This record gives sequence, structure tokens and C-alpha cells, in this order.
Amino acid sequence: MAGVHRKIILWICDGMGDRPHLSLGHKTPLQYARTPNMDRVAALGQCGIMDVIAPGVTPGSDTAHLALLGYDPHEIYTGRGPFEAAGVGIDVREGDVAFRCNFATVKDGVVVDRRAGRIKEGTETLAKALDGMVIEDVEVIFRAGAEHRGALVLRGPGLSPDVTDGDPHATGVPVPEVKPTSPEGEKTSRVLNEFIKRAMETLSSHPLNAEREKKGLLPANAILPRGGGVVPHIPSITEKTGLRVAGVVGVTLVKGICRATGIDLVERPEFTGGADTDMMGKAREAVKALQDHDMVLVNVKAPDLMGHDDRPMEKAKTIEKIDEAIGYVLDNMPGDTIFALTADHSTPCTFKEHAGDPVPLAIYGRGHRFDNVGKYDEISCAAGSIGRIRGMDLLPILMNMGGYSKKYGA
Amino acid sequence: MAGVHRKIILWICDGMGDRPHLSLGHKTPLQYARTPNMDRVAALGQCGIMDVIAPGVTPGSDTAHLALLGYDPHEIYTGRGPFEAAGVGIDVREGDVAFRCNFATVKDGVVVDRRAGRIKEGTETLAKALDGMVIEDVEVIFRAGAEHRGALVLRGPGLSPDVTDGDPHATGVPVPEVKPTSPEGEKTSRVLNEFIKRAMETLSSHPLNAEREKKGLLPANAILPRGGGVVPHIPSITEKTGLRVAGVVGVTLVKGICRATGIDLVERPEFTGGADTDMMGKAREAVKALQDHDMVLVNVKAPDLMGHDDRPMEKAKTIEKIDEAIGYVLDNMPGDTIFALTADHSTPCTFKEHAGDPVPLAIYGRGHRFDNVGKYDEISCAAGSIGRIRGMDLLPILMNMGGYSKKYGA
Repeated sequence: MAGVHRKIILWICDGMGDRPHLSLGHKTPLQYARTPNMDRVAALGQCGIMDVIAPGVTPGSDTAHLALLGYDPHEIYTGRGPFEAAGVGIDVREGDVAFRCNFATVKDGVVVDRRAGRIKEGTETLAKALDGMVIEDVEVIFRAGAEHRGALVLRGPGLSPDVTDGDPHATGVPVPEVKPTSPEGEKTSRVLNEFIKRAMETLSSHPLNAEREKKGLLPANAILPRGGGVVPHIPSITEKTGLRVAGVVGVTLVKGICRATGIDLVERPEFTGGADTDMMGKAREAVKALQDHDMVLVNVKAPDLMGHDDRPMEKAKTIEKIDEAIGYVLDNMPGDTIFALTADHSTPCTFKEHAGDPVPLAIYGRGHRFDNVGKYDEISCAAGSIGRIRGMDLLPILMNMGGYSKKYGA
Repeated sequence: MAGVHRKIILWICDGMGDRPHLSLGHKTPLQYARTPNMDRVAALGQCGIMDVIAPGVTPGSDTAHLALLGYDPHEIYTGRGPFEAAGVGIDVREGDVAFRCNFATVKDGVVVDRRAGRIKEGTETLAKALDGMVIEDVEVIFRAGAEHRGALVLRGPGLSPDVTDGDPHATGVPVPEVKPTSPEGEKTSRVLNEFIKRAMETLSSHPLNAEREKKGLLPANAILPRGGGVVPHIPSITEKTGLRVAGVVGVTLVKGICRATGIDLVERPEFTGGADTDMMGKAREAVKALQDHDMVLVNVKAPDLMGHDDRPMEKAKTIEKIDEAIGYVLDNMPGDTIFALTADHSTPCTFKEHAGDPVPLAIYGRGHRFDNVGKYDEISCAAGSIGRIRGMDLLPILMNMGGYSKKYGA
């Protein structure tokens, strides 16, 4: 088999790790759910648990996916802004300074609603009115994201992320003046304040907002930027590993990680990043994408949402839906594919937030080692032959199983 | 539950890890002892084993406690002196150079007894005669410790720990001249030699020693300093983590770690750091200290002493006494407290010294994951869902379980 490269699927159930829940008889949603296909991966493969960043450390979805793709987030993660911007489709470049933004409603200089009445439509049109602006010698790139969200990229010389947010994170207060947090942030704060001012002028007089007000809706007449970060140098995953990777992903932030690391996105409007996502569609696209890629990353977001909302029974049901989709993949992928099943972090229902509890991991590959674990869950997997590893160790393990690993030494 | 902070108890049985002993039917003292309460922690919680520093590395109690408190000993541990000095109550400051010392008996310049006839009383009076001396521009701080022990701190400009010991570590030989081991140690060696000389003059003429000689006891007429280290910059545990921590500790060295890391010590004369310590008193104080602290560290020293002396049966009996005290804590702590039970290192009876064997770990917290291990010992715990971790990983894990962990990323 030496020299033969095998395909890899890395299936990530966002926020799936959990804790025992009273309403499930002190089982975790994963322990409670009927998951014959996940259990098939566990039974035929090797199991373990994984600290995606490090033991006890609570991962974000962005830092977690970076680690699972073999990037050290401590080296390259500079904040959410750059990945959010890449997620909405901006072709970010090293040195750009990027911000997450909200469309908001401001009256007489005071923030009335940080989400512009949870605006759902028209933000792309509004974004176009702001995109391409030039302030001093700085190019402004602006794109709408999902719902009330957007992303702002500043491109030019002398920029820095060392500035305060242009978002008060509260209502009933004025839009704050952006201030530098170091001498390097001086120019950026000036440009950002000017952008906020011009955006307010442009949006206030935009016909789309006049229409909204006619309908009794709050106008999206201001932009509140936050979470600024400089776009780091990120070698593509193909440069780093030689692997051509596809991503079947709905949620914007993880799409951003994919774009920033050179992963080809398979995009469909049905892949919403929500509970209503087309799970089986993702499974079909994952199998298809194997044809012209070495590895496919799949992210299904729904378990995380149920965790944030403390809905353990719905989390278990969602896991059962995912299990069906995994069944399709197992039945339709090339027989020698390496299939890895894990989560990017735990989102325990009882905690309603990301937590640092380790996630379960199972890896199946025909002809590879298998252990005695027959059930895929947080506790059963801990008894498996993989033991306890860190997120950054996963990709090298998968590459080894797929025959891509290069000898270190002679 | 997000945002709710829970209390944490970290109960450390000093040197409890062991190896099988012939006299216990090839069981370890922990396997041999009846420990229903430790087993309760294992049964209701998660288990694992822990390399307090790293696999196979033999920890000291000082480096071990630093690691368990989340400090990297490789970064901040500069020798035992600074922590011993903090342990006897000296308010050490960054840049101080500190030494452990023995009160000794010297006749005609030759060391007759390195422990001054195992002197037990009067060393505080003798220490006062040395404390406050000024040599060149260096302030001398001296305090007595337990029995024949003391601690010396030099405070002033141009000091360095780069000097040889002023202790021959043998009898029948002269008090050695302290020498610099680098050019930086020049001044310190000069000051230390002068201190040793003046101490010998002061102590030799001290009435307390005249009295000792009248009684036929060896005079404590010399100070032998060793183990010099510079006091490093140590951010307090509250600065580092936000946690307010109390320490229920008897043994001087661990008290020193607590003082140096900003842990509030609960001190009682009954907490001796010996086999006769008031175990149940420590349990009561631990529960009380939870009221105004986020975390309480408890250290019980006795198992280590039994290990050093190869007394496996007494080690087992001591473990049973500790088990009762733990029972009190489990029954009286707030119901949602996170309770972690472990050791700082192994002191196998058959080895009579600290060893690098991993230590057992069990963590219970209501609503947290639990595994199938029902017995707390070195082997049973190794099958648990925590797997094998390092000492520095423990505090982040406890902080995650207590709801103190901050998300890294978004």
C-alpha cells in the first residue's frame, strides 16, 4: 500500500460534546441518541477523546477549526474579524485589518437597536453603497453577512488593529468614538471614525431605509464595527501538507477559516449553518467532493445551536439526523476512505455556552487498527485506543492513515 | 448555568502514589486501604492518572504544587530557597536571593553536627540575633523554621544566586568558603562568607548556647546556607486566573508556594505537616474557607513521610484517616462544589524517595461527566475517562468545570 493515497473525510459536529442531562436520565445527548452509524465508525475504528486546543481550554469555532486543520491558533489567530470577513467572501490579504460589523439603528447619535430591527433583507444592497469607499489612502471593502451582520476590511499602508470598538455593545448610548490603543492605531482609528460617519450619511439617505421606515421598520442607518484583527500570513493547507481539501460548510465563520486556509468551498443555499440545513445534501456533496480532493471537511452546526439553547432532546434528535447522513457517507464513499468523526468543542446544554470539556473522536479506515469501543459518545470513546490527544494532532494522524505522512529521519 | 461560578476543592495527598508492596499482598497502600469516600469521588466523577511534571520526571513537592496551580516550574522555579523562605513567613520580594539553612555545631572550624543535636527549641531566639544584620549595602533577613532549619534572605543591589553552598553536606570537615560560580556571584559570595563568619561569632557567644552546653547539648553555633535561588517574578494566582484561593497546609515548603502565589493560608498550630496533623480539622477549615474563596487547596503531608520510611501499613492507615476527613468534606461542602482528589507525586515505600510514577486523579462535580471507575487507586484510575494528563493541565480543567474558563476565539 505504500505510496497509495487514500481519501479522507473529517466530519465535524459543531458543539456536539455535552454533559449528562437530568431530562435524558443523566445521559449526554450523544449517549441518549440512537446513532447506529456513528457507532459503526466507533466499532470498526479507533476511539479517543480530544482537547481541541488544550485540556480545560474553551475553544471558539474558529480557533478549533484552525487546530483541527493543523494550524497553531496561538501563532496565527488574531481575532474574529479576519475570518468573518473571509467568511462573507472578501478575498482578504495579509496585512488587511478586518472587523465584524452590525447594521444598526441610530437616532440623534444614540444607538436605538444594535441589529436594525433584526433586518433580514436588503443588506447586500446597503453594503454595496459602502463598498469601495476610499478614506485617505485606505481602500474600504464592505460586505453583508447573514441577517444584520457584515464585515469591513481596511486595506492600505500604516494600518493596525490596535483600536477600540466602534460598537457600544449596548443601546441607549451614543456611537462611541474609535480610539487607538497604541500609537500604531492612530491612523486606523481616524479612518474608522470617518468610515462610521460616512456610512451613517450614506445609509440614512438610502431609499431602502426610507422604504423600511414607511413600513414601520427600523432603518439600518449605521454600521458598528468590532473585533478588529490584522489578517495574518496563513500558508494554504495545500502548501503546508500537499492535500487538496474541500469544505462542505454552512456557517460563515467556518467558511472564513476555509477560505483563509485555501480550502475549496462547496456552497449551496440549502447549507444554512442552521438547524434547517440540508444534512443529507451535505453528505451527498461530501462524497462528490472526494472525486477531485484528497480530503473533505464537513461541518454541521445544529448541535451547537441546541446546546446554546439548552434543548437536550432536540440536540439528541439532531444528532440522529446527522447519524443518517453519516450512514449515507459510509455507504457511498470509496471503501478505503479514512473517516474521522468528532466535534470542534463541547456546548453543554446545562452550560449554554462553549466549554472546555474534551470531545469524542472516532476514526475508521479499512485495514487500520480497531479497538473494543462500540459506542460513539463522550465516555465510551475515552476508553479507546487513541487515548487523549490534542486538536493539532488530528490532521497528522489522518495524513498518516491516508498514506500522506513523510518520514522524519531515515 | 453560563456565568455561574462554582466552588473548587483541590485535595492533595502528599506522596500518596506508590508501588505494590509484598507486605500488602502486592497491593499499593492505596489499593490496600479501605477508602469508601475516595471511592465515592471516583464512582460519581471522572478518573485518570497524572504526570505532575512530565512522564517519568520525579517532582519535588515545590515544583509539583506550582504545576498543580497552573505555573510552569520550568519558567519560575529557581531553587528551593525562595519558597522555603516564603514558607517560614519572610515576605520575599522579586530579586531577593534566598537560602535554606541549618543550625549546626562547629568546633575549631570543623562541622561536628549538621543539625546541632537536632535542636528543637530556641532557634527563634537565635534567629532574632541574626536578623536585620547589614553587610555592605545588603540587608540580611533570617528566620527559624521547623527544628534545626532556617531561611536566609539577602536583599540589595548586585546579588546573584550563582554561589556554592556554605554547607559541606558532611561532618568532620571545615565549613567551606562560599565561592562564586559566575562573575555575577562575586558580591554575594563575599556577603555570604561574611554572614557565616558573623553568625558564628554571634551564636557562639549567645547565652542560649551556653545553657545548652551546660545541659550537655550541642550548641547551635553556626549557620550552613544552601540551595540559593533568586526570587522570581510570580504573578499571584488571582492575577493569573481571577480565582481567590485559600490554602489549608501544614508543611513549610508548600506554605511557601502558597505565600509566593498569593494564596491565603489558613494556619493552625494543629496543622503540623506531620503524621500527627489534625486531619479532620483541616477538613472543617477547608469547608469554611470556601465561604470567601473560589478555590481551596488542601495538602496532607503524612503519606509522604510513611513512603520515605517504608512503612506501607502505616501509609494505608493514614490514607484511611484522610478518607474520613474527605467524607466530612463531601458531606458538608456546597452540593455543586467541584472536588478534585490527587497527589503531588509518588513516594513508593519500596523506593523511600519521591518517584516519577504518575499519580491517581478523580474529579467530581454534580452535573459533570462521570465514567465507570468506582475505585480510587493508581491502577483503577488509569482506566478512567480523563486519561493521562499533566499537572499543569489540572487547573484549567477545574476552572472549566467550575465555569471560570474564558473562550479562546469566537
